[in-house]
Amino acid sequence: MAEYFIENKEYFPGIGKISYEGKTSKNNLAFKYYDAEKIIRGKKMADWLRFAIAYWHSFCGDGADPFGQATHIFPWNSTGDPMQNAVNRANAAFEFITKIGAPYYTWHDRDIAPEGASPDESARNLALIIDELKTRQEATGVKLLWGIAKLSADTRFMNGAGTNPEFAVLAHAANQIKNALDATIKLGGEGFAFWGGREGYMSLLNTDCKREREHLARLLTLARDYGRKQGFTGYFYIEPKPMEPTKHQYDFDAETVVGFLRAHGLEKDFKLNIEANAAELAGHDFAHELQVAVDNDMLGSVDANCGEPRNAWDTDRFAGNVYETTLAMLAILRGGGFKTGGLNFDAKIRRNSIDPEDLFIGHIGGMDTFAFGLESAIAVLDDGRIPALLKNRYASFDSGDGAQFESGGFSLETLAGRAGAYGKIGWTSGKQELFENILQEIILQ
Amino acid sequence: MAEYFIENKEYFPGIGKISYEGKTSKNNLAFKYYDAEKIIRGKKMADWLRFAIAYWHSFCGDGADPFGQATHIFPWNSTGDPMQNAVNRANAAFEFITKIGAPYYTWHDRDIAPEGASPDESARNLALIIDELKTRQEATGVKLLWGIAKLSADTRFMNGAGTNPEFAVLAHAANQIKNALDATIKLGGEGFAFWGGREGYMSLLNTDCKREREHLARLLTLARDYGRKQGFTGYFYIEPKPMEPTKHQYDFDAETVVGFLRAHGLEKDFKLNIEANAAELAGHDFAHELQVAVDNDMLGSVDANCGEPRNAWDTDRFAGNVYETTLAMLAILRGGGFKTGGLNFDAKIRRNSIDPEDLFIGHIGGMDTFAFGLESAIAVLDDGRIPALLKNRYASFDSGDGAQFESGGFSLETLAGRAGAYGKIGWTSGKQELFENILQEIILQ
Amino acid sequence: MAEYFIENKEYFPGIGKISYEGKTSKNNLAFKYYDAEKIIRGKKMADWLRFAIAYWHSFCGDGADPFGQATHIFPWNSTGDPMQNAVNRANAAFEFITKIGAPYYTWHDRDIAPEGASPDESARNLALIIDELKTRQEATGVKLLWGIAKLSADTRFMNGAGTNPEFAVLAHAANQIKNALDATIKLGGEGFAFWGGREGYMSLLNTDCKREREHLARLLTLARDYGRKQGFTGYFYIEPKPMEPTKHQYDFDAETVVGFLRAHGLEKDFKLNIEANAAELAGHDFAHELQVAVDNDMLGSVDANCGEPRNAWDTDRFAGNVYETTLAMLAILRGGGFKTGGLNFDAKIRRNSIDPEDLFIGHIGGMDTFAFGLESAIAVLDDGRIPALLKNRYASFDSGDGAQFESGGFSLETLAGRAGAYGKIGWTSGKQELFENILQEIILQ
Amino acid sequence: MAEYFIENKEYFPGIGKISYEGKTSKNNLAFKYYDAEKIIRGKKMADWLRFAIAYWHSFCGDGADPFGQATHIFPWNSTGDPMQNAVNRANAAFEFITKIGAPYYTWHDRDIAPEGASPDESARNLALIIDELKTRQEATGVKLLWGIAKLSADTRFMNGAGTNPEFAVLAHAANQIKNALDATIKLGGEGFAFWGGREGYMSLLNTDCKREREHLARLLTLARDYGRKQGFTGYFYIEPKPMEPTKHQYDFDAETVVGFLRAHGLEKDFKLNIEANAAELAGHDFAHELQVAVDNDMLGSVDANCGEPRNAWDTDRFAGNVYETTLAMLAILRGGGFKTGGLNFDAKIRRNSIDPEDLFIGHIGGMDTFAFGLESAIAVLDDGRIPALLKNRYASFDSGDGAQFESGGFSLETLAGRAGAYGKIGWTSGKQELFENILQEIILQ
Repeated sequence: MAEYFIENKEYFPGIGKISYEGKTSKNNLAFKYYDAEKIIRGKKMADWLRFAIAYWHSFCGDGADPFGQATHIFPWNSTGDPMQNAVNRANAAFEFITKIGAPYYTWHDRDIAPEGASPDESARNLALIIDELKTRQEATGVKLLWGIAKLSADTRFMNGAGTNPEFAVLAHAANQIKNALDATIKLGGEGFAFWGGREGYMSLLNTDCKREREHLARLLTLARDYGRKQGFTGYFYIEPKPMEPTKHQYDFDAETVVGFLRAHGLEKDFKLNIEANAAELAGHDFAHELQVAVDNDMLGSVDANCGEPRNAWDTDRFAGNVYETTLAMLAILRGGGFKTGGLNFDAKIRRNSIDPEDLFIGHIGGMDTFAFGLESAIAVLDDGRIPALLKNRYASFDSGDGAQFESGGFSLETLAGRAGAYGKIGWTSGKQELFENILQEIILQ
Repeated sequence: MAEYFIENKEYFPGIGKISYEGKTSKNNLAFKYYDAEKIIRGKKMADWLRFAIAYWHSFCGDGADPFGQATHIFPWNSTGDPMQNAVNRANAAFEFITKIGAPYYTWHDRDIAPEGASPDESARNLALIIDELKTRQEATGVKLLWGIAKLSADTRFMNGAGTNPEFAVLAHAANQIKNALDATIKLGGEGFAFWGGREGYMSLLNTDCKREREHLARLLTLARDYGRKQGFTGYFYIEPKPMEPTKHQYDFDAETVVGFLRAHGLEKDFKLNIEANAAELAGHDFAHELQVAVDNDMLGSVDANCGEPRNAWDTDRFAGNVYETTLAMLAILRGGGFKTGGLNFDAKIRRNSIDPEDLFIGHIGGMDTFAFGLESAIAVLDDGRIPALLKNRYASFDSGDGAQFESGGFSLETLAGRAGAYGKIGWTSGKQELFENILQEIILQ
Repeated sequence: MAEYFIENKEYFPGIGKISYEGKTSKNNLAFKYYDAEKIIRGKKMADWLRFAIAYWHSFCGDGADPFGQATHIFPWNSTGDPMQNAVNRANAAFEFITKIGAPYYTWHDRDIAPEGASPDESARNLALIIDELKTRQEATGVKLLWGIAKLSADTRFMNGAGTNPEFAVLAHAANQIKNALDATIKLGGEGFAFWGGREGYMSLLNTDCKREREHLARLLTLARDYGRKQGFTGYFYIEPKPMEPTKHQYDFDAETVVGFLRAHGLEKDFKLNIEANAAELAGHDFAHELQVAVDNDMLGSVDANCGEPRNAWDTDRFAGNVYETTLAMLAILRGGGFKTGGLNFDAKIRRNSIDPEDLFIGHIGGMDTFAFGLESAIAVLDDGRIPALLKNRYASFDSGDGAQFESGGFSLETLAGRAGAYGKIGWTSGKQELFENILQEIILQ
Repeated sequence: MAEYFIENKEYFPGIGKISYEGKTSKNNLAFKYYDAEKIIRGKKMADWLRFAIAYWHSFCGDGADPFGQATHIFPWNSTGDPMQNAVNRANAAFEFITKIGAPYYTWHDRDIAPEGASPDESARNLALIIDELKTRQEATGVKLLWGIAKLSADTRFMNGAGTNPEFAVLAHAANQIKNALDATIKLGGEGFAFWGGREGYMSLLNTDCKREREHLARLLTLARDYGRKQGFTGYFYIEPKPMEPTKHQYDFDAETVVGFLRAHGLEKDFKLNIEANAAELAGHDFAHELQVAVDNDMLGSVDANCGEPRNAWDTDRFAGNVYETTLAMLAILRGGGFKTGGLNFDAKIRRNSIDPEDLFIGHIGGMDTFAFGLESAIAVLDDGRIPALLKNRYASFDSGDGAQFESGGFSLETLAGRAGAYGKIGWTSGKQELFENILQEIILQ
């Protein structure tokens, strides 16, 4: 294989394959920490991190915001023919993905192929582009981490997709899901995702939440059943997000989604796709949401970004804080690392970052930050002090009465009888500052 | 029975029984909307609302805040003898409860009786006061809505109660729960509550969330089993709260608790005690949390207060917004009204509200606001426009394909096949402003 | 004059002039509280409230959000010719304004006339449309509350307008301001506004805040000087907003803007345009920001909307809470009522409110809510209890030592010498619950 | 001088003077980055950072929170005699300060000496302790960074101190300020601070904000005049904080306080004491508030702590994030470094951090984090790329039209005339990701 993919036209001229140059490099277009081939605990760094490039932000996102026009005017979207643009976009995408060196990518159906004049034409458009993508995947070795149906942007979804009060809209959502799932299977996608941006409400007053949630559960069930029937063996993912665009989304956070999946018998096939920015909007640390997913054995994949402190809307910045990525990777490592999922850059350059190189610089920052986090997390485990302090806190449950309690050997009366005299019981330092200092010591090492 | 309870000393002299005088009254110490005996849909207003007075705020809360000393210096807490104070406090409480005319009250074990020098002495203290309370309940007809063990204040719980890393602390928590549950049963309490203020973490780094959650689940299970064995027939309640005093509590919000209870087989015996202020801290409207509880058939009781807009900590103000109470009562009515629970005033007067009458004024405000909300909610239902608009939004699921979908008659393929041509599908107004205007029209009627 | 304005085509057929029908009306298209001609304290309700319709939301806002396409497809924007659309839009606007019965309107330059191929062509476009608007103003009696230059949407402003690091952009901003100010003067506009949506930063790292703020101050100074030279006698307004679209805006809140204006000698000519939603985003109650403006004698005008609780971005809902409008009108009344400003509906119907009548219903709700607030605020003043309680709290400063302190008659030493013995000094109830109950009693009367 | 101070009893036995051991040390009780004597740009690290230990958190803070009892049971506060406790506390404080190696400390009057039975007795108590502190300062070389009167905790201040509606309370506040200022002068304090925790409102309804703010301004003026008369040459500081304990404080943020000080002619004598946690509560980054202070030449001192992300109340954690301290130190360096102020640890260990060593560990973490930040900030300046990128963004104002604009050489008309043709004007990348990557590269170097 060539070092990177270029079809007819080079969309990022002057920029070659991004290479690892180490922390002392001052090259803006080199990795300082991400060394794909480096072996860590017997596995390549690339295989630990499983980076994916998100089609929507990087090749479709035009920089418009609620108060301003598009600022990212992509050359690949400039012909008058939407299908030709889609092919050009695929070329640009594979050029970028191979130059940045990500093993995976992700898409919505509407990112890769334009909606047609009818559902059938949309399906044909999608199928044509899938062939194009398949060729490029084979040419480059880039793989599809997951696909998703875009059930948020079109006007028909303004009252919801799977939770729309009109049956006809739900049928359209099902149609898109079916086609996107077919496409994912065809491209060997390792997962299939759902994002419920319109599955919620703008006002409780005009909403029957119970009925809407049940419709959603049924739709997910049908999608699961269909996928399995078609031989899809990957996981389905749900990405929790509390709000925006709606006032309140049903998939509020990890706990909510875990409960929802279990209540509807979906917990075997569905896992969570945790997004850092969405975690923050829900009032949780990124690491908390990951830990909830891990504790329930439901961590599927990660949308690797971060919010802007003080701004409580979706800013989808590239991760740039090694404390957060260290804690995130710790949670992921404790969950056994990624199986079918990965770190997907649901992240965008700022709307005023309009140089072609900015897309590379943003991704390099994000990849380096997670690579650093991986190495710090491993260092925390290798160092052993934090794991030992943590384990030691719970030592009273590892044997004796504590162990008996854990194994179900107590009634409330017998347990209550174990309450000794008052005194300094429970007066044990949590050592939080020590934990924090050790963590920082390792990170800054 | 006398109009109100006074033992030896009147603690609120000059204030008699608060009566309903109607909306044109300018008497600060009269109800404008709460008319206990008024029959609404065949039931007394008092029976719809089931108001309870919370011992902790009203008879124990001293007005201290993180930056300032106590301001509420209660005469009933002024002797040097904690047990005598406890009796005096009971007298003051029953005087207040009967003067304000609430049918219920609630307490923590430590509100009503002081901790002794040992668990056994604490249990004896509690038992003695329970006798005192029982006498006063019988004398006045006031009933216990629910009891709770205070597992938050004592220093021994600084690392958690049921989730403490030390087994010995958990045993103390069990001891308190057992005694508080016994006391609740003895007083004919209609429910028994849990509030997990210390069941969470101050730092993810030093916490094994999974193990802690499992300990908590087991403890709740033991409490349930013990209660049932003792003949307790009421519900157990869990009050969700996202944070404060800890950084993050396990009982974050209604969805989280519903999922937790189901995951541990507790959903038959446990219901939710929804608090308005806690809902807001979790990023939800009060009515949303109530609706989640109702939709899962798990609404148990309500902590009737509100937060201070712009302040993201627990302010426990008296409800004073009829929009919020109307929406809350609508959700409660849709859930069939209260069974064992009620509206408990987990609310406090401001620390600079130090006149004895202020405690009355605060409660009058809260009671009137909920009484108004009840009448507005009934009016919304009677008016019929909002229910009809709401039902009509989902009409496409009441018959035909929509009904078939709901009853499980579709696969994804057949459903997808129902997607018609693109066009104005889904282009239906949500009529949110109309819903809101009608609601306001009814409220301000 | 005709009852309402229609040029060639009626854009809201089936809807006539909205009339006042009183609180018992169930007509969705009638006012329940806004009775324009009603005399209150010798002045018409219309003259107290001075409602204005905002061109941008009502006739330009297409319903797109960061995750979804346009949903409001206006017939007046449907020809291929931008100038013809602008004329049609003016016709629709004046039809709506006269049907809803608002005495004022507001616009951005780019709302009313399209940008041309050059600054000069833009100026010509604007001048042509100004003539059209002038004709319609004269035909209907509708007046211009204020105009503003739109310095936020165009891509050239992505790094700021008056604070752009490139001088050339600043020159473009000045050009737009000059033309918009000329247009405002020509139409007899009573004010001229600035909104600094791009005057802030997305990252402190790449920003020289001091230099940017000084550029902004100079630009405002030049605009003031130019306006005065052209005979403009109205006030200039600045609308504080803390963030969005940028991470942090310089005009963060009322206090910030007051300080900025004073520091640059602009406080005589500039006043504040307070927006409810922006107040909330800055962590303030709407009434707080109004009070700050009033206390500094700098309340100019109001953007009458509200945020969505729990959503911390600009939702621009129509005001629908009479507590908030009562408190707002109280502050405005205390400031002497509006002089050149008014209540401008910087508010939009939800994106899924797509029926033509929804625009009326939204405005009716907002107008009724403020009309109710006005009457409640007057009732609070007439009732007298709250003003008396408030005045009485400060009685110790009305005479004696307190008065001497206020008039400057003390040094620190003499003041310190007035400290008496410790004891119950300062132990005075703030009576907050009483204030709140009285307020609610009056509102619900 | 001895290595550290011990009077009769060692309060932190087993812990000696904390020394710098470098980043590879695994000693929990050693500095990894804070090397006091290291020369940076010709100045010792200690002189750049000017660390101060806060009496209130470290020697008075008992660990109580709104839901729980005291957990920090200090041996120095254990005798029954408040004055003896005060002496013991001073001994413990100087032991800690000298062991940790901080050159400065800070106090409230009530931290160091108990309130007496009357203002005069309080003054005498204070004077006696001042003598004790003076002796210890001379014995150790530790200096007083600033003193402050505690006008928040006593019940008499529940309605405010300088803004209390009762004149008598204001007189008490003045009395405390005078005595605390006298004490500060006697101890050679380099500054004198004000924190307006009770200077705000719990309800707008019962508050005359204008009158209260004017009282506050007058009180500050009297304090300034008195201090100057007594020969105090340091600066007065005001610490902005937006809320908590009140709903809304007058000293909301840096911009608000700058405006307030200028409006009352206090800007020459008063500077800002910026607190990180308070900045966050106000919706600002720590570095933003510092930059506002620097840009107005009003940066006085810093309360060096941080908030807990997701918790919107005052958590006063020790700084533990080198991104934040790097940005903070950059702002401080751009302001020319500290003159009279310093980095004061208004930070507390968690309430469950009850080992004596935890107080050291917390401070070590905070000191290392700021030392690291200082070195990173210097490295950013030395590296030069970020300063150059920043300067270059504004190059168009360094000469030509831009410079003429800055120097006042344009009217609006002439400026408007400089608007060239539309086109790619302003289409310049803000390079935010590049700035961020370079910053991180330098931090992680």
